[in-house]
Amino acid sequence: MLADQQILRIPGPSPIPPSVQRAMTQPMIGHRGQNTSDMLRKIGPKLKAIFGTSQEVAIITGSGTAGLEAAVVNVVKPGDEVLVIVTGAFGDRFAKICGAYQINYQRIDVEWGKALNPAAIKSYLQEHPQIKAIFSTYCETSTGILNPIKELSEAVRQVSDALIVVDGVSCVGGVDTQMDEWGIDVMVTGSQKAFMLPAGLTFVAASERAWKVIEQNDQPRFYLDLKKYRDNLIKDTTPFTPALSLLFGLEQVLNLIDEEGLEQVYKRHTLMMQMTRAAFHAMGIPLLTSDEHASPTVTAVKPNDFDAEELRKVLKKEFGLSIAGGQQHLAGKIVRIGHMGYCSPADVLQIISTVEIGLQLIGKEIVLGTGTAAAQKIYLNQGVLV
Amino acid sequence: MLADQQILRIPGPSPIPPSVQRAMTQPMIGHRGQNTSDMLRKIGPKLKAIFGTSQEVAIITGSGTAGLEAAVVNVVKPGDEVLVIVTGAFGDRFAKICGAYQINYQRIDVEWGKALNPAAIKSYLQEHPQIKAIFSTYCETSTGILNPIKELSEAVRQVSDALIVVDGVSCVGGVDTQMDEWGIDVMVTGSQKAFMLPAGLTFVAASERAWKVIEQNDQPRFYLDLKKYRDNLIKDTTPFTPALSLLFGLEQVLNLIDEEGLEQVYKRHTLMMQMTRAAFHAMGIPLLTSDEHASPTVTAVKPNDFDAEELRKVLKKEFGLSIAGGQQHLAGKIVRIGHMGYCSPADVLQIISTVEIGLQLIGKEIVLGTGTAAAQKIYLNQGVLV
Repeated sequence: MLADQQILRIPGPSPIPPSVQRAMTQPMIGHRGQNTSDMLRKIGPKLKAIFGTSQEVAIITGSGTAGLEAAVVNVVKPGDEVLVIVTGAFGDRFAKICGAYQINYQRIDVEWGKALNPAAIKSYLQEHPQIKAIFSTYCETSTGILNPIKELSEAVRQVSDALIVVDGVSCVGGVDTQMDEWGIDVMVTGSQKAFMLPAGLTFVAASERAWKVIEQNDQPRFYLDLKKYRDNLIKDTTPFTPALSLLFGLEQVLNLIDEEGLEQVYKRHTLMMQMTRAAFHAMGIPLLTSDEHASPTVTAVKPNDFDAEELRKVLKKEFGLSIAGGQQHLAGKIVRIGHMGYCSPADVLQIISTVEIGLQLIGKEIVLGTGTAAAQKIYLNQGVLV
Repeated sequence: MLADQQILRIPGPSPIPPSVQRAMTQPMIGHRGQNTSDMLRKIGPKLKAIFGTSQEVAIITGSGTAGLEAAVVNVVKPGDEVLVIVTGAFGDRFAKICGAYQINYQRIDVEWGKALNPAAIKSYLQEHPQIKAIFSTYCETSTGILNPIKELSEAVRQVSDALIVVDGVSCVGGVDTQMDEWGIDVMVTGSQKAFMLPAGLTFVAASERAWKVIEQNDQPRFYLDLKKYRDNLIKDTTPFTPALSLLFGLEQVLNLIDEEGLEQVYKRHTLMMQMTRAAFHAMGIPLLTSDEHASPTVTAVKPNDFDAEELRKVLKKEFGLSIAGGQQHLAGKIVRIGHMGYCSPADVLQIISTVEIGLQLIGKEIVLGTGTAAAQKIYLNQGVLV
C-alpha cells in the first residue's frame, strides 16, 4: 500500500477539498469583529439556497446530534405526543433524544432498507390527531435510503398540523432540498457529509409555523436555543463563540458549490449513485435498497455469497480504501459506500475498479471490469448527454 | 467537473502526499542552526540509499536543469571532448548545456521512443578514445524510455575511462538505482518527480573517480560548485541558503519511503507501469516504447486512430485529469501518463477507467472495461502473488 494514501469513502466524514483545507488554516480572528460579521453575511444566503428556505439557517457549533437535539428541545416539551418514524439507526436516535426529554413519543418502525410510507403515516395521524410533531430522516445513513419527505409532507398536511422535523445530516447539500416549497418545518444537517467539512458544525432551519411553536415553547434550553441563533444571525453574529476555522472552511465550501452550481452538484450526486448501483447490479451483487428510494449520497451493498467485513478489510489493506460496515443488526451484513461531497465520477470508477479486485481477492468470482464498464456506461449516457 | 478536483498524472510535477504538504508548512527556522544540521544528518543516509552510493549526495536549491548544469561544469571544461547520447528532449538539454559552455561535444541521436544501444556506444568509444565524459539519460521523460544505464556502464568500462554522467530526474526514487555497483560517475535528479515534492531541489552525487576529475577541473563555477556542497554536507550544513520548506518536505518524503520500503517502492512503480501498459495493449492502442525498455514512472501512448490532444482535452474537461502531451516533434502525436511518486495501483485504475470514457467521448470505439480488466489482472497476478 502506498504510504500516506487514505481513500475515504465512508458515508461521512467525507474528504475535504484542498482549497477548503487551506481556508481552514487562516489565522484566527475575533468572533465579534467585522471580519466574522462579513463572513456570516456572505454565508447566510448560500445556506438558505441549499435548504430551500427564506428563513435563517442557524449555525451551531456541535455535531449533527446537537442539531437533532436542538430540533427536539425547541419544538416539543415533556408530555407532548410526537411520532418518530424509524427507518434506521438515525431515526432511532431521534427516538432516544425524545426519550431523554420525557417526550411522549410513538414510533413507527420501518424495516431497515425500506423507505417510510407516506400513506401509512397519514392513516396513523388520522387515528392520532393529538400528534404535535413528526420526526423523520431524509437520507438514512445506516441503510442508504432516501425517504420521500416531500410526499410525506403532502400526505401529513392533508390530515394534520403536526410539525414535520427532518434529519437531513447525510444528504442536505448533495440532494435537492426545498424546505419552504415542500412544507418541511425543521431541517437539520451537519458539516461532515455533503458539506465537505470536518464535523463540528450543525445547521438547523425552521419554518414560519415552527418558529411560532418555538417561540411559545417553555422547554428549558440554553446553548441549543434556536431563537438565540436566529436573533444573532439577523445581526450577523452568533450567540456563542463559533468554530471559526470551520466557518472559514464553510465560506469556501459554499464558493465551490457556487462554482459548480447547486443543480449540477445534485446531478453529480445522482450520477454517482447511478454509477455505483449499476456496477453492483452488473456484478450480480444485491443492494440493500430499491432503486426508487436510493440515496444519491450513500449506497449499501448486501452480499449473499461473500463476507462484507472481508471485503472491507481487503480494500483497506490493499488500497487504503475505507468503506463502512453495517450498524446495529446489519453489522457484518452490509458494506456502505459514501459517494458524497468531494467525490467525483472518477472517484466512483476508482471505488468500483478496486472493489472488483477486492472481490476476487476474497474469493467472490466476478468477471473483472464488469462493474466498471456498467458505471462507465451510466457516465456516458447521463453524465454527458443530459 | 467537481470543483477543486485536479487529478495530476503528468510525468512531473507529481502530487504531494498530505503529510509532506503539512511538513512543508512548519515554521521557518535558521539555516545555520542545530535544527537544520539535525535534519541534514537524517536526510543524508536515506538519499545515499536511493542513489545506491556511499558518496555524499549534494542538495542544491534549483530545478533539475541546475543539477544537469552542475554535472557539466564540474566534470568537463571548454575544449574537452564529450559524447552526449540523445534519446529525447532531456538528452538534448545536456547537449545544449555543453554547447553553452563551449564543450566539444559529439552527439549520438537515437530515434525518440527507442533506448540507447550500449554496444553502439562501446564501438563509438573505441573509435573515439579521447572522449572524457558521456552524458546520458536514465528515464527519458519525453518518451517514457528507461535507458539501460547499467549495461551502458558495463560496455563503456570495457573500452574507456570516460566518466558516465546520468540524468535521473524522472525516475530516481522510483526505479532501482545503484550508482556505485553499476559504476555511474555522476547522477542527477530533481524533487518534483518520484521524490513527491514541489520542484526546487536537485540532487547530485559523484563517484570517487568523478571527484578526482572535479577537484582538478578549473572550469569557473560558484553556485553550482559541487565541492562546496560536499564539503559543507560533511559538516551537516549547506554552502548557500537552502529552500528550507522543501527540506522539511524531503525529510518526510524519506520517512514515507522508509515506511513503505525502498524495494516495495520500486515494485509498486513496476507494477503501475505493467498495469498501464497491459491496459493499452488490451485496448489495442500502441505505446511509444517497447515493454523491454519501458520506464516504471511514465508511459507514452502513441495513437494511430485518434487525436492525442483531443483525449487530453476531454479528460481535463470531464474529470480534471491532466496527462501530458508530446514534446518537440512528438507534440500532438503522443500522450504521456505519469505514474510515479505519490501514485498507487488504485490511482492507475482511476486513470485507465477514465481514459476509457475519454476514448469513447472522442469517438475511438473500445469495449468499456477492457483496459481496466487488463490492469486489474496484472494487479491480481503480480501485486499480490509476488
